[in-house]
Amino acid sequence: MFGAVIHAPGDVRYEERPDPTILEPSDAIVRTVAACVCGSDLWRYRGIAPVPKPTPIGHEFCGVVEEVGDAVTTVKPGDFVVGGFNPSDNTCPVCRKGAQANCLHGAHYDGAQADRIRIPWADGTLLATPGTPDEDLIPSILTLSDVMCTGWHAAVSANVGPGRSVAVVGDGAVGLCAVLASVQLGAETVIAMSRHDNRRRVAREFGATHIVTERDEAGAEAVKALTNGIGADCVLECVGTESARLQAVGAIRPGGDIGLVGVPHGDLPINDLFWRNVGVKGGPAHVRSYLPHLLELVLDRTINPGLVFDLDLPLSEIGEAYAAMDERRAIKSLVRP
Amino acid sequence: MFGAVIHAPGDVRYEERPDPTILEPSDAIVRTVAACVCGSDLWRYRGIAPVPKPTPIGHEFCGVVEEVGDAVTTVKPGDFVVGGFNPSDNTCPVCRKGAQANCLHGAHYDGAQADRIRIPWADGTLLATPGTPDEDLIPSILTLSDVMCTGWHAAVSANVGPGRSVAVVGDGAVGLCAVLASVQLGAETVIAMSRHDNRRRVAREFGATHIVTERDEAGAEAVKALTNGIGADCVLECVGTESARLQAVGAIRPGGDIGLVGVPHGDLPINDLFWRNVGVKGGPAHVRSYLPHLLELVLDRTINPGLVFDLDLPLSEIGEAYAAMDERRAIKSLVRP
Repeated sequence: MFGAVIHAPGDVRYEERPDPTILEPSDAIVRTVAACVCGSDLWRYRGIAPVPKPTPIGHEFCGVVEEVGDAVTTVKPGDFVVGGFNPSDNTCPVCRKGAQANCLHGAHYDGAQADRIRIPWADGTLLATPGTPDEDLIPSILTLSDVMCTGWHAAVSANVGPGRSVAVVGDGAVGLCAVLASVQLGAETVIAMSRHDNRRRVAREFGATHIVTERDEAGAEAVKALTNGIGADCVLECVGTESARLQAVGAIRPGGDIGLVGVPHGDLPINDLFWRNVGVKGGPAHVRSYLPHLLELVLDRTINPGLVFDLDLPLSEIGEAYAAMDERRAIKSLVRP
Repeated sequence: MFGAVIHAPGDVRYEERPDPTILEPSDAIVRTVAACVCGSDLWRYRGIAPVPKPTPIGHEFCGVVEEVGDAVTTVKPGDFVVGGFNPSDNTCPVCRKGAQANCLHGAHYDGAQADRIRIPWADGTLLATPGTPDEDLIPSILTLSDVMCTGWHAAVSANVGPGRSVAVVGDGAVGLCAVLASVQLGAETVIAMSRHDNRRRVAREFGATHIVTERDEAGAEAVKALTNGIGADCVLECVGTESARLQAVGAIRPGGDIGLVGVPHGDLPINDLFWRNVGVKGGPAHVRSYLPHLLELVLDRTINPGLVFDLDLPLSEIGEAYAAMDERRAIKSLVRP
């Protein structure tokens, strides 16, 4: 089969790789229908995270089950499935608490930007759609593998709910999904912080009530101006850089909650936050926990998170899929084998 | 009048001070019935926080209103009242969000270990009891000025609720109140971490289901042994030292919530917590928010937080009140003018 392999910063290649096989009775093999590039893949692409050797890459997918191990009971060959970027057995004590991202038996994919993928813990990771979904739903289903669940996780971690005011830092695909999640969870005011026309358009489509184009201190002041002078009840930090984190700290009201999903590349002034009674929670998303509800919302066309994809390429053009995101020519790239 | 003045580490004196007067129309003057020494007062007593000049000290009290400013409408001379350690107007946008500890017009007392106290924002700070309370309820009412509300705040900040497992780090008066709060909020398992016989007794009386005597890593392991091997859903950090904070980090399960109320004297590994999806929230307690409910629970004798006082002295013996707590001969000292 063929798949994407990162060789060095800026160098992702489409190349032949061995076909995956069932290694454990709890495995499944999925034929990929669609995969995509994650903002977190760019950390290596940009040389911020190391690439010690050529490595298959990608962790978002949906597709059709081809084969299952003997222990798999909830999905079968022919099922159309989506699974989270972080396989979980969904039965360990941590999973039973709803914290599947931290499954005691967590595992990783050996590169999901590929024709086929070995899925560890198939029962705990995959969810099958009833029948084959309409073609136009594929992008939205694919977002449930990571980006939509991650935006949802930011909102849940920050206690977004009815009547609340929310500011979203970051207008990447995760930030946009965090806007959609906040609207869906009943927030009254949803402020998207974005300077890019095309991203602002998606934010509006997702239900953002306000757009703030300023950044840093001016951005925080603009959020305060929209929230009775005190800052938002909830701020969703969907970038991870030091400046994004400080912008979140500047925009939150005393007693508010910051939801963190941007991979941390900076510190937080945690003792200052103590005196302001600001909460901080987040991390990798508990995809398996959110998947059933969000898949329902996608299938009944309540939400359309697939709008975050503005580039749709054959898998063979994976290099361009990365380059377009890196150069901000695309919000998020979908690839099809 | 007379009151306590801290002159230097280890040197708190009972001395004559000017009588307080109404300075703002929103003020009240309260004749102190009981006051007490706070763990946070000990930071200065122990020389950890500076004492730049002789300073009236104390911020916990209950008493009888003697005089009110023209703007005060909810309390009147003769009322028996309790108020939080952090005066709040209870009307500003932050207070209306329930974050009264961070009131935009927050103020401080000029030493509440005194015969009389000037109360800024009397309407927003004080709550009157219906009639004069029974004498034996005075200690419990006094705890609502800080320590019981602070323990409650730790529990609320960590999302303590029905069915949850809770570990409390710190067996000072706040930690013990956090045990009581957790039980009251419906936690299923409440683990008090304590090595002192007398404090363990109070913890049991407050409803702790388990006592862990180990500290540091061994303490965290003992908590895990009681919580399905993964750690507690909620950990309440009621000390503030680096070692207490690390103990909290060690005892929390992935996806759990740490409630912080110990004045921070150490850092938190916030990026490690990100990968474990652990939440952190807390700070000075929103006393005015909790006061009505907790006063009801005290007056109907549902809770008896006054048990944290194991020393009851005349105000004139304030030096001994501090020394006994500093030397851990007392959990918490109550003083009466």
